[in-house]
Amino acid sequence: VVSKLPQTGTTIFTVMSALANELGAINLSQGFPDYDCSPGLIELVNKAMKEGHNQYAPMAGVMALRERIAEKTEKLYGAVYNPETEITITAGGTQAIFTAISAVIHPNDEVIIFEPAFDCYAPAIKLMGGVVKSLALEPPNYRIAWDMVKRLINQKTKMIILNSPHNPTATILHKEDIDELSALVKNQDILILSDEVYEHLIYDGETHHSMARYPDLQQRSFIVASFGKPFHATGWKVGYCMAPAYLMNEFRKIHQFLVFAVNTPIQYAIAEHLKNEETYLSLADFFREKRDYFRKGLEQTRFELLPCSGSYFQSVRYRAISDEKDADFSIRVAKEFGVASIPVSAFYSKGIDHHVLRFCFAKRQETLDKAVDRLIRI
Amino acid sequence: VVSKLPQTGTTIFTVMSALANELGAINLSQGFPDYDCSPGLIELVNKAMKEGHNQYAPMAGVMALRERIAEKTEKLYGAVYNPETEITITAGGTQAIFTAISAVIHPNDEVIIFEPAFDCYAPAIKLMGGVVKSLALEPPNYRIAWDMVKRLINQKTKMIILNSPHNPTATILHKEDIDELSALVKNQDILILSDEVYEHLIYDGETHHSMARYPDLQQRSFIVASFGKPFHATGWKVGYCMAPAYLMNEFRKIHQFLVFAVNTPIQYAIAEHLKNEETYLSLADFFREKRDYFRKGLEQTRFELLPCSGSYFQSVRYRAISDEKDADFSIRVAKEFGVASIPVSAFYSKGIDHHVLRFCFAKRQETLDKAVDRLIRI
Ligand SMILES: CSCCC(=O)C(=O)O
Ligand SMILES: CSCCC(=O)C(=O)O
Repeated sequence: VVSKLPQTGTTIFTVMSALANELGAINLSQGFPDYDCSPGLIELVNKAMKEGHNQYAPMAGVMALRERIAEKTEKLYGAVYNPETEITITAGGTQAIFTAISAVIHPNDEVIIFEPAFDCYAPAIKLMGGVVKSLALEPPNYRIAWDMVKRLINQKTKMIILNSPHNPTATILHKEDIDELSALVKNQDILILSDEVYEHLIYDGETHHSMARYPDLQQRSFIVASFGKPFHATGWKVGYCMAPAYLMNEFRKIHQFLVFAVNTPIQYAIAEHLKNEETYLSLADFFREKRDYFRKGLEQTRFELLPCSGSYFQSVRYRAISDEKDADFSIRVAKEFGVASIPVSAFYSKGIDHHVLRFCFAKRQETLDKAVDRLIRI
Repeated sequence: VVSKLPQTGTTIFTVMSALANELGAINLSQGFPDYDCSPGLIELVNKAMKEGHNQYAPMAGVMALRERIAEKTEKLYGAVYNPETEITITAGGTQAIFTAISAVIHPNDEVIIFEPAFDCYAPAIKLMGGVVKSLALEPPNYRIAWDMVKRLINQKTKMIILNSPHNPTATILHKEDIDELSALVKNQDILILSDEVYEHLIYDGETHHSMARYPDLQQRSFIVASFGKPFHATGWKVGYCMAPAYLMNEFRKIHQFLVFAVNTPIQYAIAEHLKNEETYLSLADFFREKRDYFRKGLEQTRFELLPCSGSYFQSVRYRAISDEKDADFSIRVAKEFGVASIPVSAFYSKGIDHHVLRFCFAKRQETLDKAVDRLIRI
């Protein structure tokens, strides 16, 4: 068969996690915790199953969950979404991203993405016949040069994909970025796909500039979020998409034939869990502590620490240590020093190597200690 | 925005289930049981969560589950699939179907489907720029006229979609169909997508002619199956796809960026549950009893019963009762008589009305009794 995605290999997350398992290395590559989600949340899933919530959920999701999401969004960002027509529960953030792209990208439409970019954006665009226009950002700050974005925009530009807090770089959008973005899309037919999976993981008193805060942006945005990441249960695969009805209508046309509906008992459990806002308001402190602890450890190594304003990833630059390519160095660190990471070059389409590795710090203190002990030896 | 699927409305399952809920009608429309899955299975999910299986599953699925599937397939159909490279766990049968179509259908490729057809095939084909070539089958037997299929085949034909046991018609493929199909695709570059979601629900000593039984067909087939349907937990959303490695390789390229992975604890639970083959070998008897009971009840009505050789659907013809269009009659039966069904015309693209309704009999005996009591009054 002729491949639809000839240049696409296996995602770097699968590759590095498999290598970590094979080597018995400490796995700081793929983003997931090595501690468990709350027993209370597990009990809520068990309760939902025992109460008989085991058949198809409504196509758009369990209404109680959509209502909790609408409340949370209004409280945090001031935007009013109608749970009936503007919120859909998905099988994780990835499915929401894929579906949003599928719903609006026609052949030859151009989509602007910023690299390093989470690796599911480009394949979805290409699969729909769209054209990826990527702008490469540079460490240590990975700031978006909006004048460069402006130069990429033309009649074919259909969408801009944003991601804040950003994976893998741990940077965030600032108010200046929002202003530039607003000016840029004003009077243009450009949609936004905003990947806000790490919305609650933001540090040092910074604000999460959700597209939901800005009506002129909100009305052209698909906003994607996740419950697996914040609630320490990445394997439950439940997330959601919010968008104004005219966009959500197209989203659901695809969603209903792509997956139809999402796991029912988990939706009931999370609807219940969200009633206590501490479940998500406490996350920034929880992860800031881990960030600070891990950074303190890494300061003893020869790595240069890059800033971390959000997400649960810490990037380091190793150019004082080696001039190997990111992919090679990452594999060598896993093999010789027993710590698996993600080479940030994997998130650039053109093989750009900035000598940066990404570590996930959603780990127990002992794990971070052990990893630091090993990384000190490099 | 310009719609990618301008002719697509909301799936008939959502429409009819919503109507049933609104009216308080007995819901024999969407296919799901009104009794619960086994408490033992729920306990296995609970156990998996408590044991900490709450983070990302491997992209292709939990290996223990893939191994159980390989064993079951070899035992039932004689085909050897490599769990490493030829089996992928999906978020339900629908996601498997969407992904298989996405993986191989290029713009202008033609795909042959038989109508009435489950409603997710055509939108996925169209979304990929493919062309749907449909052949309309007729009640009461809905036999495939293979000489007509032959006439549809040309250089652009990329795939044939089969579904046995068939939803909505409850018919099955026979050995003669397999022979015709084999002759037809021999020496041709034509793939098969075989939707075998109801593989275990087959009655009266008939054989399930899985593509896995026939090496010449197996090596060109994506076979899709589900656990939600057989294990009475349609809301858990877990199914799978099997295909030879050269096809599965393309399937996974999409799968990894469409959903990445599937709910982890449920995969562990089902892997455990499958160790006892009675869990699926007992299903044919379980549902045959329901079929016989429901048919006996329906014999007291003015409906003409169509054959039911597999699946958990029973179709009836009402031409002696009314000449309304299926959609109108189905709505009227829900409103005036309190029983929701699926109008089979919804599964024909060209609005063909054969005056046939589909009822789901995966219901408690009381529910079937109550439905029959109401249908007698028509
Ligand atoms: C979708 S698997 C990868 C998890 C993740 O988001 C990451 O590691 O960046
Ligand atoms: C995917 S929702 C519909 C369930 C089903 O398979 C049916 O009712 O035919």
